[in-house]
Amino acid sequence: MAELKKIIIDTDPGVDDAMAIFLALQSPEVEVIGLTTIYGNVYTTLATRNALHLLEIAGRTDIPVAEGSHLTITKGTKLRIADFVHGTDGLGNQNFPPPKGKAIEQSAVDFLIQQTSLYPGKVTVVALGPLTNIALAIQADPAFIKNVGQIVLLGGAFSVNGNVNPAAEANIFGDPDAADIVFTSGADILAIGINITHQVILTDADRDKLAESSGKFAQYLCKILDVYFSYHHDAYSTKGVYLHDPTTILAAVDPSLITYVEGVVRVQTVGITRGLTLFYNKQKRFGEVTEWSDKPTVKVAVTVDAPAVVKLVMDRLMNS
Amino acid sequence: MAELKKIIIDTDPGVDDAMAIFLALQSPEVEVIGLTTIYGNVYTTLATRNALHLLEIAGRTDIPVAEGSHLTITKGTKLRIADFVHGTDGLGNQNFPPPKGKAIEQSAVDFLIQQTSLYPGKVTVVALGPLTNIALAIQADPAFIKNVGQIVLLGGAFSVNGNVNPAAEANIFGDPDAADIVFTSGADILAIGINITHQVILTDADRDKLAESSGKFAQYLCKILDVYFSYHHDAYSTKGVYLHDPTTILAAVDPSLITYVEGVVRVQTVGITRGLTLFYNKQKRFGEVTEWSDKPTVKVAVTVDAPAVVKLVMDRLMNS
Repeated sequence: MAELKKIIIDTDPGVDDAMAIFLALQSPEVEVIGLTTIYGNVYTTLATRNALHLLEIAGRTDIPVAEGSHLTITKGTKLRIADFVHGTDGLGNQNFPPPKGKAIEQSAVDFLIQQTSLYPGKVTVVALGPLTNIALAIQADPAFIKNVGQIVLLGGAFSVNGNVNPAAEANIFGDPDAADIVFTSGADILAIGINITHQVILTDADRDKLAESSGKFAQYLCKILDVYFSYHHDAYSTKGVYLHDPTTILAAVDPSLITYVEGVVRVQTVGITRGLTLFYNKQKRFGEVTEWSDKPTVKVAVTVDAPAVVKLVMDRLMNS
Repeated sequence: MAELKKIIIDTDPGVDDAMAIFLALQSPEVEVIGLTTIYGNVYTTLATRNALHLLEIAGRTDIPVAEGSHLTITKGTKLRIADFVHGTDGLGNQNFPPPKGKAIEQSAVDFLIQQTSLYPGKVTVVALGPLTNIALAIQADPAFIKNVGQIVLLGGAFSVNGNVNPAAEANIFGDPDAADIVFTSGADILAIGINITHQVILTDADRDKLAESSGKFAQYLCKILDVYFSYHHDAYSTKGVYLHDPTTILAAVDPSLITYVEGVVRVQTVGITRGLTLFYNKQKRFGEVTEWSDKPTVKVAVTVDAPAVVKLVMDRLMNS
């Protein structure tokens, strides 16, 4: 039997994080070896609580949850929490009871470093929130970027407007300094930006199908999707929601769902475009040294098989 | 007889500025009422000298040249002069004799303010260099933005890499603070970015045709094009040159050559993406106030009829 791809999900649940976590658990190609938590859709404390809750819903309390950073890497930066997208509890304002389990003693950073060193080259880290934990792991252990198999991250708005403001996507805006550290670290990185995820829409009709399913994940998700659908309708006039985190998980599970280009990405960390991701396509050879010169390249997704992603989301979430 | 569109060209000649100035003089739809000068391809003093020289070549010493700013609007910023693109003399290292004429006493800013107030709504300013003079006119006279008919500017890299570095286009990078003042001024602005002008290429074969022409403009230009072609070959591996300034002039002469979208553009003035132009497409309604909120919109070109532009360039430059 072929060895399963080991996955750690760094997450800030979050409605679409819940979908992504369930999808990963329902994907026979991968083994989820842990969740690490981060602020973003909610504060880190609540992210940890929600991660434990979601694993209990899935009956997978064997999977450890390690709590991550409560602050951006430069400290002092005011956190931007997207409770208006996901509900104040991060899970559609459902007031679920607190989880029975607890996070492990180890911090997210220590867990990331330990697990990737235990299985060098075998662990994919799927980062669904701001990149603080990943950047801290890179800073704490020079071996981390070699030990980690790949970092598949939801982040950036490549050649399109952002979703926090016209310049910046939410995860990168959440900690631009951390993001710039990650993008220039030399790790094997695949970035899924909102230029990709805005092509992958779960429609009202798809949601109706989920509601008719007897699958436990489908049933659970239908409870928490209201706030998320309302937000999309108000902000984008769409009848449906963008599948940011599910697309990112599935790109890690099956890379053939996307195509990518390779080049250097830098993150603007100050000024009106703070959080902007800028990809250098190498079309021009600059005579002068630029901030993109001599930096390691990363992979940036440029196309996605959106119908295939939506079909996998539906099939796997209804099959339980 | 219909009144001709009056044009002032703000210019830093520059090989493609020379082409653009000749094109304007060869365009029966417009009347060039003056040139104002600016640093960019060369320092301002040399830009003035070259502007006078080009008008003498054209036999149009009736057209006034007004010298513009020698410094960026915030002062103190080191100028970036693109002599490696255009030659140290700005005109292909041809060592032309100095012009006989002189610039008028009036400054570029005073000339822009005076002429637009003399013909309110009738003067199109075509800006081919950094936007310092235009921004200074806006600051000096609140009526300028109402009196000017339209500002058609070569500037920005919209959703594509820049040409100074991956983030910034040369004219905007030359004075980002001035550019942000112009874009948010409320004037009627049409921006032609390098996403447009990189589609409009004068090929080696076109140049051979120019060389065979007996037209005086074609003959003159063939002398100065060598450095410009070499630069493009080295930097872009193209067998041909981008027609930045000629495309911009022709967009002012015949707006049907391009299509545009309308939205707010802001310019990043600090950090690694200093000089980046960011267009907000209004696809998302942001819940929070952003730096793009409540700012006047501008027009940004999104398509160009490149074959038609090249044909006009060739026909008009060979017809003399």
